[in-house]
Amino acid sequence: MDKGLLVVISGPSGAGKGTIYSRVIERTGMQRSVSVTTRAPRPGEVDGIDYFFKTEEQYQQMIAADEFLETAAVYNNFYGTPKAPVFDNIDNGRDVLFEVDVHGARSIKRKYPEAIAIFVMTPSFEELERRLRGRGTETENSIATRLGSAKNELGKYELFDYIVFNDNIDDATERVLEIINAERCRVKNNINAITSLLK
Amino acid sequence: MDKGLLVVISGPSGAGKGTIYSRVIERTGMQRSVSVTTRAPRPGEVDGIDYFFKTEEQYQQMIAADEFLETAAVYNNFYGTPKAPVFDNIDNGRDVLFEVDVHGARSIKRKYPEAIAIFVMTPSFEELERRLRGRGTETENSIATRLGSAKNELGKYELFDYIVFNDNIDDATERVLEIINAERCRVKNNINAITSLLK
Repeated sequence: MDKGLLVVISGPSGAGKGTIYSRVIERTGMQRSVSVTTRAPRPGEVDGIDYFFKTEEQYQQMIAADEFLETAAVYNNFYGTPKAPVFDNIDNGRDVLFEVDVHGARSIKRKYPEAIAIFVMTPSFEELERRLRGRGTETENSIATRLGSAKNELGKYELFDYIVFNDNIDDATERVLEIINAERCRVKNNINAITSLLK
Repeated sequence: MDKGLLVVISGPSGAGKGTIYSRVIERTGMQRSVSVTTRAPRPGEVDGIDYFFKTEEQYQQMIAADEFLETAAVYNNFYGTPKAPVFDNIDNGRDVLFEVDVHGARSIKRKYPEAIAIFVMTPSFEELERRLRGRGTETENSIATRLGSAKNELGKYELFDYIVFNDNIDDATERVLEIINAERCRVKNNINAITSLLK
């Protein structure tokens, strides 16, 4: 059996990576990665399903033991992707899908270079601005900050294997699904299948 | 503008590469590569459409001038893929599709490493044998020869980027189309698009 794929969807805030991620999970039944966090559970959240909830001390021990594929601090809480369940899935031939920011994508690529990293981007920065503005929840300041970050993030395009221009969400989702199906056909992801045919 | 893709479909005789090639051309409108040959035109064949017809002397001059991406002798005739029209297409952003044997695929990869090489294979050698037998035109001898060649060809899997198991022709065609669409999303095939966004 060949390994499963580790696929990372990233891109600037507002480009649509979250929606594409949810749709791809729904369409493919790919494994989600459950994050570890130090923040308190919200009502209804279940440990091991929504997050693995840890104390800050436990989290720091996990960092020290190199148990994360990526970890980040957001405000006063930590969020991270634990290695063990991810590698358990891919070692058993199950594909895993992530939605992470560009820092997270870089960290995952460093620790697992075979990861497939997809950057989701609007067709233009003007369109990104229009979408951020359309949310109605962003201040002028935060729009300017997000646009600046987006330029910065796209500038790191060399970290990524693929770029999907999200002109409309159906087509963009389709393109991500095509990328995943194509990657399943890569020779390097079928070495065991091929060599067992040749036996 | 970014370059077009050079996509090569190959695989053993009987695995279905010819049918997939024709369907992909039909569905995508990708540019076909017109081969050069020294064989005489058959009734109805048009120079420059079906083949470029050349004398053996002209052909040898083209070989000497390194004008081929790949060239092969079949019985007493030569067949080859001329570089110039292919590079003219990809330099102008048009994707080109080829159907060649494994020797041809190797030769194209050597001369143009960015070529995307897809190996089309039956799900098993038993199935390949069944299909060859089903043609009703192959002798036992030629079936044995073709199966031997097929093993040999699959053994060269490292030459290829992708492998498509042709369990049924509709799915296999779909997978080749997905591979081509995915390759169009590769960051390395969108450098100009990305850098002009960043300007």
